[in-house]
Amino acid sequence: MTSPVPAAPALDFVFHPRSIAIAGVSAKEVPGFGGGGFVTSLIEIGFRGPIYLIHPSAPAIRGLKCYQHLSDIPDEVDYVISSVNSRFVPNLLEECIAKKVRVLHLFTAGFTETGDAERAKMEQAVVARAREAGIRLIGPNCMGLYVPASRLAMMNGQLPESGPVGMVSQSGMNAGEFVRYATPRGIRCSKVISFGNGADLNAADFFDYLADDPETEIIMAYLEGIQDGPRLAKAIMKAGEAKPVAILKSGRTVSGSRAANSHTASLAGSLQIFDALCKQAGAIRVESLEELVDVAVTFRFVKKLAGPNVVVVGGGGGASVLAADELDAAGLKLPAILPETQEQLAKITHEAGTSVRNPIDTTAMWDEGGFEGTLRPVLEAPNIDIVLHHTSFGGGPVGRFGDARPRSARQAESLGKLQAEYGKPIVVAIRPSTTADAFDLALDFQEACWKNGIATYPSIARAGIGLARLLQWQAMREA
Amino acid sequence: MTSPVPAAPALDFVFHPRSIAIAGVSAKEVPGFGGGGFVTSLIEIGFRGPIYLIHPSAPAIRGLKCYQHLSDIPDEVDYVISSVNSRFVPNLLEECIAKKVRVLHLFTAGFTETGDAERAKMEQAVVARAREAGIRLIGPNCMGLYVPASRLAMMNGQLPESGPVGMVSQSGMNAGEFVRYATPRGIRCSKVISFGNGADLNAADFFDYLADDPETEIIMAYLEGIQDGPRLAKAIMKAGEAKPVAILKSGRTVSGSRAANSHTASLAGSLQIFDALCKQAGAIRVESLEELVDVAVTFRFVKKLAGPNVVVVGGGGGASVLAADELDAAGLKLPAILPETQEQLAKITHEAGTSVRNPIDTTAMWDEGGFEGTLRPVLEAPNIDIVLHHTSFGGGPVGRFGDARPRSARQAESLGKLQAEYGKPIVVAIRPSTTADAFDLALDFQEACWKNGIATYPSIARAGIGLARLLQWQAMREA
Repeated sequence: MTSPVPAAPALDFVFHPRSIAIAGVSAKEVPGFGGGGFVTSLIEIGFRGPIYLIHPSAPAIRGLKCYQHLSDIPDEVDYVISSVNSRFVPNLLEECIAKKVRVLHLFTAGFTETGDAERAKMEQAVVARAREAGIRLIGPNCMGLYVPASRLAMMNGQLPESGPVGMVSQSGMNAGEFVRYATPRGIRCSKVISFGNGADLNAADFFDYLADDPETEIIMAYLEGIQDGPRLAKAIMKAGEAKPVAILKSGRTVSGSRAANSHTASLAGSLQIFDALCKQAGAIRVESLEELVDVAVTFRFVKKLAGPNVVVVGGGGGASVLAADELDAAGLKLPAILPETQEQLAKITHEAGTSVRNPIDTTAMWDEGGFEGTLRPVLEAPNIDIVLHHTSFGGGPVGRFGDARPRSARQAESLGKLQAEYGKPIVVAIRPSTTADAFDLALDFQEACWKNGIATYPSIARAGIGLARLLQWQAMREA
Repeated sequence: MTSPVPAAPALDFVFHPRSIAIAGVSAKEVPGFGGGGFVTSLIEIGFRGPIYLIHPSAPAIRGLKCYQHLSDIPDEVDYVISSVNSRFVPNLLEECIAKKVRVLHLFTAGFTETGDAERAKMEQAVVARAREAGIRLIGPNCMGLYVPASRLAMMNGQLPESGPVGMVSQSGMNAGEFVRYATPRGIRCSKVISFGNGADLNAADFFDYLADDPETEIIMAYLEGIQDGPRLAKAIMKAGEAKPVAILKSGRTVSGSRAANSHTASLAGSLQIFDALCKQAGAIRVESLEELVDVAVTFRFVKKLAGPNVVVVGGGGGASVLAADELDAAGLKLPAILPETQEQLAKITHEAGTSVRNPIDTTAMWDEGGFEGTLRPVLEAPNIDIVLHHTSFGGGPVGRFGDARPRSARQAESLGKLQAEYGKPIVVAIRPSTTADAFDLALDFQEACWKNGIATYPSIARAGIGLARLLQWQAMREA
């Protein structure tokens, strides 16, 4: 990251196709999954080059002209998406070779993951032929790429805005769910790769690429199996050295390991060995997709912690006690509030049943001037490294706190300003909503927070784990 | 529970006031927290008796006539809510004694929980005087009662419908959050009690009451400290013998224990000892408020499991692999699907990239006839004890699956019918929504599910833990 103008990593062409052909879009199919789904997603995100469809008989589908064969297309085709049945893949590959296509993305499933020896052999033959001809394969059995800057999407609803988070995923669904959960919390992506069986390009290639990619600052991964162990280890080491890396490794139980094998023909391998590799690489290993999102948010917005000392600020005694338990259990510390800080807090929080100890349980935050009045003293306090503010929408007393929407916009702005002013991270936990109206308010506040540079989490416990993971990562880097 | 007509438990009068007086409603205050909040909540839930306000000067507040003193009220007053400053409590208590009030609920805080010796002494004096005069106290420093059948609410938004779940909570907020989270998942309550410092009536009294209460079938609790250990232990033992009991005990860490002391003057005590007590009583100890809600849902809708063998049915390979890990880690088993079951499933799930192993990863469920077509074979399978269906709203391919609202209503009905027909529990995990529209759809489906007798959970992992807790409870009962 210190080299002046980094050279484009070797696989860069994979992520920047100028034209795409899709084989296997049904003429009758409602736009949905498979070939038709890719048409929808690419049009929605605004792919800038031409999209050609390959179809044996239809003249056009959804307004796009169809060609019987790749060779019928009058222009160059960089990238082909295959949604045809697996038995047609060898023939499609030959057409790709003749057309000088550079990348073949096999959404097509029905290869090694079926457990059928014949189909595994077919997969190997396809890979051998592609390599011989110099075509790179993504897949089979995967959703391919989401690259906002190239206006490539793997699913509908994916935004065209780019950001610093790259993701390598053996599962298209988990890649899609990661993006779906992370986007409203302010995560924008550089490249998201679903690679399925990884018959040609695999996890090692993509870690290696993202480690070099100047558009990627943070690397997230979902892996089911370990292919080509030593190469993968080397790639993760390289990525871990260059950038923050977090990996969700499934197949950690007997049932999960069997499911991974059905899904992407993966051999899950030993979690202990994988864990040791992560430690050596300085990569965080997480336990769930939710945690992967939380860690991405933490790396993206919190970035660095001076220490584990957190102060909890919000309303509600019971929530405060549980917060203290959850944060302590996650590995953070809740130091006692210094007398001088308590004194300042007591000027505005003086209602009985509240507390200016840590957690600070206050209703004054929702009074005029009370929000910054409560936050400034704790941001100034020398024994506090992180401020965690928790709130919710749709519960709580009616009326007293005024209209939620303008208030929460003001609060988010205030949080961003204070975080910048004191150079101390502030994070927000928004407890779950139980009505659609409250959910809408919470989404607005969440967006206002990240737009002001504030990390948000869906619970105090998850904020605690996210923050603890950053501390763990820092400790590994310093070791 | 086998006695023919159980006698009303001794404390029954506490939960059935015919008239209420509230002291300490500010004349200027926007309806919000405190005295005004209780007025709002009681009117909203439709309290059937008169509500009298005590105020030194205002003639009326919000249309309710005010009296200077309790003695000025021309009728009997069963129940008084105090929101006055703690220094006025001794005087209010004298008025209650003169008026022959039966229960004084002290929302008023500022007693032992402040850590101030003088205030602790005042609390003891109030208790001694109340006991001498035969008045029972709830609190101080608490939200009091939510009793739908008596149209008593402690917070706004609480429904007037009754149900079988009773709750004892040292924190008003956690009682409120439990109700707020559990209500949309089909939990209805008999009695919810927030008792704060528990200076007179405490956890032991309320466990004892709920154990005898014929309207309560399931008992949930949030405790911060252990008061009067041997009596509490006896009450929990009695409750655990009579009914399913789950307890969230906070103060399990150093920070949490300190916070519990600030909040309700609680001494958290040893978690090991508390754990041993729970085991002896056959009560489940849970780790979070979310888990408490999940366990309530499991006791309420699943009720009984024949064994730990779960089949996961839904769409998405990556989600399936993670599901297998999460359920296995929770202590459930994912048996292989029998050949004859696989054969039946393969008739409708034949798309490449899907799986009829366990988890069953299928898109056929969303096709005509595919929902029951997928569920019936696994419900028939002799090696399956529980069916877990997972789904989400707002993600997934556009178009193919048709309009979500009527489909999900049909599916919920189908789930209820099949669960009854096969006598085998079906549970549903609804993965998180990220837009308000999707959230609204998910809420609708959730409601349709519980109205058809189906337990819902916000994630596969949480469903797994909820189910595992029921198995754990059954094992304790059989031991």
